[in-house]
Amino acid sequence: MTDLPRTEHLDLDLQHDWLSVWLNRPDSRNALSAGMAAELRAVAAALRDRPDIRGVTFRGRGGTFCAGGDLKGFRALMQEGVAHADVAAFSREGGLLFHEVNELPQVTLMLVEGAAMAGGLGLACAGDVVAVTQDAQFALTETMLGIPPAQIAPLIVQRIGLSAARRIMLTGARFDGVGAQALGIADHLAADAAGLDAYEAEIRAAVRRCAPGANAVTKQLVLAAPRLGREAMLDTAADGFARCLLGDEGQEGVRAFLEKRKPVWALAPGQEGRA
Amino acid sequence: MTDLPRTEHLDLDLQHDWLSVWLNRPDSRNALSAGMAAELRAVAAALRDRPDIRGVTFRGRGGTFCAGGDLKGFRALMQEGVAHADVAAFSREGGLLFHEVNELPQVTLMLVEGAAMAGGLGLACAGDVVAVTQDAQFALTETMLGIPPAQIAPLIVQRIGLSAARRIMLTGARFDGVGAQALGIADHLAADAAGLDAYEAEIRAAVRRCAPGANAVTKQLVLAAPRLGREAMLDTAADGFARCLLGDEGQEGVRAFLEKRKPVWALAPGQEGRA
Amino acid sequence: MTDLPRTEHLDLDLQHDWLSVWLNRPDSRNALSAGMAAELRAVAAALRDRPDIRGVTFRGRGGTFCAGGDLKGFRALMQEGVAHADVAAFSREGGLLFHEVNELPQVTLMLVEGAAMAGGLGLACAGDVVAVTQDAQFALTETMLGIPPAQIAPLIVQRIGLSAARRIMLTGARFDGVGAQALGIADHLAADAAGLDAYEAEIRAAVRRCAPGANAVTKQLVLAAPRLGREAMLDTAADGFARCLLGDEGQEGVRAFLEKRKPVWALAPGQEGRA
Repeated sequence: MTDLPRTEHLDLDLQHDWLSVWLNRPDSRNALSAGMAAELRAVAAALRDRPDIRGVTFRGRGGTFCAGGDLKGFRALMQEGVAHADVAAFSREGGLLFHEVNELPQVTLMLVEGAAMAGGLGLACAGDVVAVTQDAQFALTETMLGIPPAQIAPLIVQRIGLSAARRIMLTGARFDGVGAQALGIADHLAADAAGLDAYEAEIRAAVRRCAPGANAVTKQLVLAAPRLGREAMLDTAADGFARCLLGDEGQEGVRAFLEKRKPVWALAPGQEGRA
Repeated sequence: MTDLPRTEHLDLDLQHDWLSVWLNRPDSRNALSAGMAAELRAVAAALRDRPDIRGVTFRGRGGTFCAGGDLKGFRALMQEGVAHADVAAFSREGGLLFHEVNELPQVTLMLVEGAAMAGGLGLACAGDVVAVTQDAQFALTETMLGIPPAQIAPLIVQRIGLSAARRIMLTGARFDGVGAQALGIADHLAADAAGLDAYEAEIRAAVRRCAPGANAVTKQLVLAAPRLGREAMLDTAADGFARCLLGDEGQEGVRAFLEKRKPVWALAPGQEGRA
Repeated sequence: MTDLPRTEHLDLDLQHDWLSVWLNRPDSRNALSAGMAAELRAVAAALRDRPDIRGVTFRGRGGTFCAGGDLKGFRALMQEGVAHADVAAFSREGGLLFHEVNELPQVTLMLVEGAAMAGGLGLACAGDVVAVTQDAQFALTETMLGIPPAQIAPLIVQRIGLSAARRIMLTGARFDGVGAQALGIADHLAADAAGLDAYEAEIRAAVRRCAPGANAVTKQLVLAAPRLGREAMLDTAADGFARCLLGDEGQEGVRAFLEKRKPVWALAPGQEGRA
């Protein structure tokens, strides 16, 4: 088990088996600076070695989710003497962040209020479940600055499909929470921040009924499904099923079902020892 | 042409060019036992060699579609001495069932009343057209037992896309027919079993206007489209088009159109000889 | 820069940076004859070398978008002595048309009134943005003629997903504009042709705020996303980002943002020189 990193631009709040990651640069509307991106990647790295943590909520301090990339960082890249390879490496590092969040073994919940612009929208699309407030603002502003929404493109295509993605990306679309739900970005529409909190409680309760290891295997299989051919998918799924059924969770889950009791992972947090 | 197999756990009803496959273990809510799965695979194998059969309806006896995998089968796999390879082989065989139904050359219609749970939901997602009753119950209960919905994952992703799939699979979602339609699982929502029957009649009539061989080629092309690159897709589509246009159906279809009459495949069942 | 071709079956109308391509065989309801298809491909070839053109609208003269393939062409292929390879080559050429329109570097807008049948529906699905009138008629009539909707299959799957595609293709579905919107074919529903014009004005204004080169790179990335694996996508996106940021558009876009003025590409057409 890896300790969670100390962070400056993120506020981490671990309660039993659920981690809340608050983007915490409210003065910059939580823009994804190089420093914040590095911390997010460090948190993701630690989470890959934390099977005790079952879910992660991402949200923003100061009433805003994330204003997108940090323009200061872009300007630094536009100085004389900066080569194509340097800019490409910068972009690739940023892209890894979105994929690493997308592939976390935990169930991830994105709670969006205020705004999710450009890269902030990309981050939201990397979650398993996305809830937004009605008045949250969304936009893909990149091409208005002369640059493509490049690294977030696959995440947006993954979440809303190719047709909607090409339309909103090529027209610099702006929309609110209602529009985000219509597009398939948001799974749940909340009236306000309190509504986001209530939805989070629902999701946490639902996730706690599911075995964490089985959930992690399921997430791997789901993300692999569009890429794998029929035979490779059959083999990968068979291996995942066998590991879970013969593992501790499979044994406990079937036994609990036959004994008509809750399995240990479905007990209230902190009660596991009393099972 | 291959004879349809004799079956114990399925009730097969062939009327002219349309086969109804009734899951028939009502005492077990039509749970997918090893015996029923083997029979379904035998029926699928026969159907691959039955171009005279144009459509297949799957439904369940006793007011329920399918309660999912058979827990007895899982328990047998959890005895001491059962190896990872044995469990993986069991899972892979089950997975083949879903893919074989998915790839049947006939048009397949799933009529869901009562419940479609876990593997039963996977079976429903393998159809071309899915209709459900409003009060039908759906759930992905696997991870609550400590195991992943592994072999059905690609079928569910195929049907409702990656975003909805990851959400419902990682939260053990339960929903009714209305929810199934909102998710994209159901194409049609019926008030009750009679509504399913009426919808089936509509689909049968629509399918009978389509040439069966052209439909089989179309289904192959549609299923191949997400996997093939641009050039391979162009070649595969060109070959399928040429085979159909130069074959009996293409000749008959264009001739009938010019002669302003119905092609032979669009006549009422049993009237073909009188064309 | 390549001149636009002279065309007989298409009516081309270039206004500043936006090209309108009118299918212009109203007596044949704009059926895709071999001649019209060749002209469309010639226009597409020219457009690949016209970075000054930012958007392309496709629509039909005479109140109809496109009635589909030209049955006369099919009949010519059914004469004695025509080989499988000849028909396949004919089909492949037709298929290239749909892919070339799909991959145009410009933003493409399809305005559908009257009807979009068979191949005409395939053409509509190759656009970035699709608007239809409420009473427009759509149908996949191919299999009723004994032939598969072969070359349009990947475009339809791309636009509406595999589930809806297999259902409408295997049942010879007919639907109007409202149905097209429900299926995800149409992004916008207009009351009539005037409504299509008004929507086109909106889309043109939105696209003009976006840098054309960045938009072209974005479109390449979006179309590539479903095919590329994680690592290849990271590299491709990084290269596209770096080329744009270090290019003229990136420099102008960020400078304009800091100077609180519109970038040159967002000025009214014809005003660029005055920036």
